Amino acid sequence: MTTPSFNPPVRTLMGPGPSDVHPRILEALSRPTIGHLDPVFVEMMEQTKGLLQYAFQTENQLTMPVSAPGSAGMETCFVNLVEPGDKVIVCQNGVFGGRMKENVERCGGTPIMVEDEWGKAVDLAKVEAALEQNSDAAILAFVHAETSTGARSDTKELVELAHRHDCLTIVDSVTSLGGCELKVDEWGIDSIYSGTQKCLSCTPGIAPVSFNKRALEKVRNRSSKVQSWFLDLNLVMGYWGSGQKRAYHHTAPVNALYGLHEALCILQDEGLENAWMRHNKMHNALKAGLEAMGLTFIVDEAHRLPQLNAVSIPEGVDDAIVRSRLLSEYNLEIGAGLGALAGKVWRIGLMGHSARAENILLCVGALEAVLSDMNAPINTGAALGRVQQAL
Amino acid sequence: MTTPSFNPPVRTLMGPGPSDVHPRILEALSRPTIGHLDPVFVEMMEQTKGLLQYAFQTENQLTMPVSAPGSAGMETCFVNLVEPGDKVIVCQNGVFGGRMKENVERCGGTPIMVEDEWGKAVDLAKVEAALEQNSDAAILAFVHAETSTGARSDTKELVELAHRHDCLTIVDSVTSLGGCELKVDEWGIDSIYSGTQKCLSCTPGIAPVSFNKRALEKVRNRSSKVQSWFLDLNLVMGYWGSGQKRAYHHTAPVNALYGLHEALCILQDEGLENAWMRHNKMHNALKAGLEAMGLTFIVDEAHRLPQLNAVSIPEGVDDAIVRSRLLSEYNLEIGAGLGALAGKVWRIGLMGHSARAENILLCVGALEAVLSDMNAPINTGAALGRVQQAL
Repeated sequence: MTTPSFNPPVRTLMGPGPSDVHPRILEALSRPTIGHLDPVFVEMMEQTKGLLQYAFQTENQLTMPVSAPGSAGMETCFVNLVEPGDKVIVCQNGVFGGRMKENVERCGGTPIMVEDEWGKAVDLAKVEAALEQNSDAAILAFVHAETSTGARSDTKELVELAHRHDCLTIVDSVTSLGGCELKVDEWGIDSIYSGTQKCLSCTPGIAPVSFNKRALEKVRNRSSKVQSWFLDLNLVMGYWGSGQKRAYHHTAPVNALYGLHEALCILQDEGLENAWMRHNKMHNALKAGLEAMGLTFIVDEAHRLPQLNAVSIPEGVDDAIVRSRLLSEYNLEIGAGLGALAGKVWRIGLMGHSARAENILLCVGALEAVLSDMNAPINTGAALGRVQQAL
Repeated sequence: MTTPSFNPPVRTLMGPGPSDVHPRILEALSRPTIGHLDPVFVEMMEQTKGLLQYAFQTENQLTMPVSAPGSAGMETCFVNLVEPGDKVIVCQNGVFGGRMKENVERCGGTPIMVEDEWGKAVDLAKVEAALEQNSDAAILAFVHAETSTGARSDTKELVELAHRHDCLTIVDSVTSLGGCELKVDEWGIDSIYSGTQKCLSCTPGIAPVSFNKRALEKVRNRSSKVQSWFLDLNLVMGYWGSGQKRAYHHTAPVNALYGLHEALCILQDEGLENAWMRHNKMHNALKAGLEAMGLTFIVDEAHRLPQLNAVSIPEGVDDAIVRSRLLSEYNLEIGAGLGALAGKVWRIGLMGHSARAENILLCVGALEAVLSDMNAPINTGAALGRVQQAL
């Protein structure tokens, strides 16, 4: 039996990522492959580093894309910075804090958990208490924008707290990079990782990271080798470093990096602050429509992310049927709840190229149509008008 | 200063990988991105597993693409199979055996090295002696096709030896998959990893792997957790497993997997044995041309890989100048020597879509022109005729 070529349907992606990929990026992916040591490719690597510095708002020399998905970006931070025996304070207010805990344990570190309810921001007072009770802690790790709930935590303040207690910071910005204010240098973030498939609107598979000098000093002074050969920054730096002579480490994912380069050019063309404002504006339009239907957000307004909207599923409505109908009738993908929120919320992503007026109208219109057809307890008739006003 | 979009030159890639990417694959990369949990995507994942089983000639259920380059495929095998304290016999006859040693050490295992000269196949007698001297060894690890030298080792015999001494096997097939005979089930290989950018002619960034039941039993019965969260097969299997319900693990590199699927469709259309024969035929044509110039191979004929041709650089010829002229004058990339062979050999790859008549003529013609222009000690005038005869 012969397997034919795969021809995917055309979807509108408004889940937690991947987001809609800009056609310029899809086209960039199909440009001719060149060697990963070709001088022209090396030049593109340099440009990509510069563009990432802009996106992260940092001058960190070690700012580069890890050749693997966001989870490997997370692992890059932990395996390099956590040494066996290190105490790491991990804030958990959603799925990804739990994954950080797993990472700490697998590096031989001791996680000290600071837990907050899912949907809440990380509580600064609890973190301060944990830092005081654990004066020997080496690192504070937390998620800037929790993809599982849509909550934004006060990153600047958390980093300040950590530094006051002599801790380095590991920050997850998978969902924040390019979608809302994030200033690595101004906020003093020591190490940070992200993904390409969220607010950069690129295809999934690459993880931008950045490390400041203080973080690199810890990596260089480790007493044991980094447990991952593939993610060992001491080796990766020889390849992505800025010297003329690059040491072969692994074969870079050439075409995926064409895509990232193009995504970052698009961000540069729009301007970072403009991109943040666009996400905000689209969020307000979506919110107007959803609230007109009577749907409610699970995150309070002060900590709500514009790019990831978690709304409660109305009483008696079957989560899976709604998502499946949106997909089959409108080619529209929205996200399910994860972990403790499975079946209780939908996650509507407005990330990068997905954060467009036409998508808001589609999403609100399709959701209203499907829910009213299923006799869900929502208000009908007003939502689309509210969206139009807000756009 | 604004960074413009990146427009790569059109190269012919005859180095050690990436190889020329088939236009069908480049086009597949630019198809619309869909969600990584979309039912249509899940169907494509199933097809990809089936196509990989065909390429590896295996019925192993756990046959799948790791979402990262070949080096991470290597690491997947080692972090899952090597437990702290395990003794691992590692054969080194080039760069990649050394990388295996690094992996064993970072997993807390003890590597027992069996070393052979670079360019030679792994010596069966030495391996047998090591297995006898280390009856407590748990694993034998070796490279089927050494990308740094072009030597092929006797995989079937090495696996038999390992099994006779109750060892599992880890086999590197980065450069062999799709380019020369490789039969995972018939040869009894327990775990194997490869890359996409060699004889599958796909873009770099994905690592196909396969594990048999015996290997998975060791993974499932580990007394310690796998040190990498990202590469832990116990978790990855929940995502790539064949159940209807897939657990979210990481976001799959959607478009890169479109490319791999297309590459495997192309292999299926050609037929695996036909692909092996094509690589052989093209190798013979290249060999005829190179030998007519007086160039010599560093690997003896019995163990020479058709897809990776390491030839000695003639006396007095500057390696870097030749490669740089081939690139700038003919847009042709050939590979440099690695490690101990740096400056001493060129590595000419005939992998996947690069193994075509037009490429052989270009490579031999361009090399002859540049070398004779540099007054290198070669025979001129006969090479292209020999290539034509052999094609």
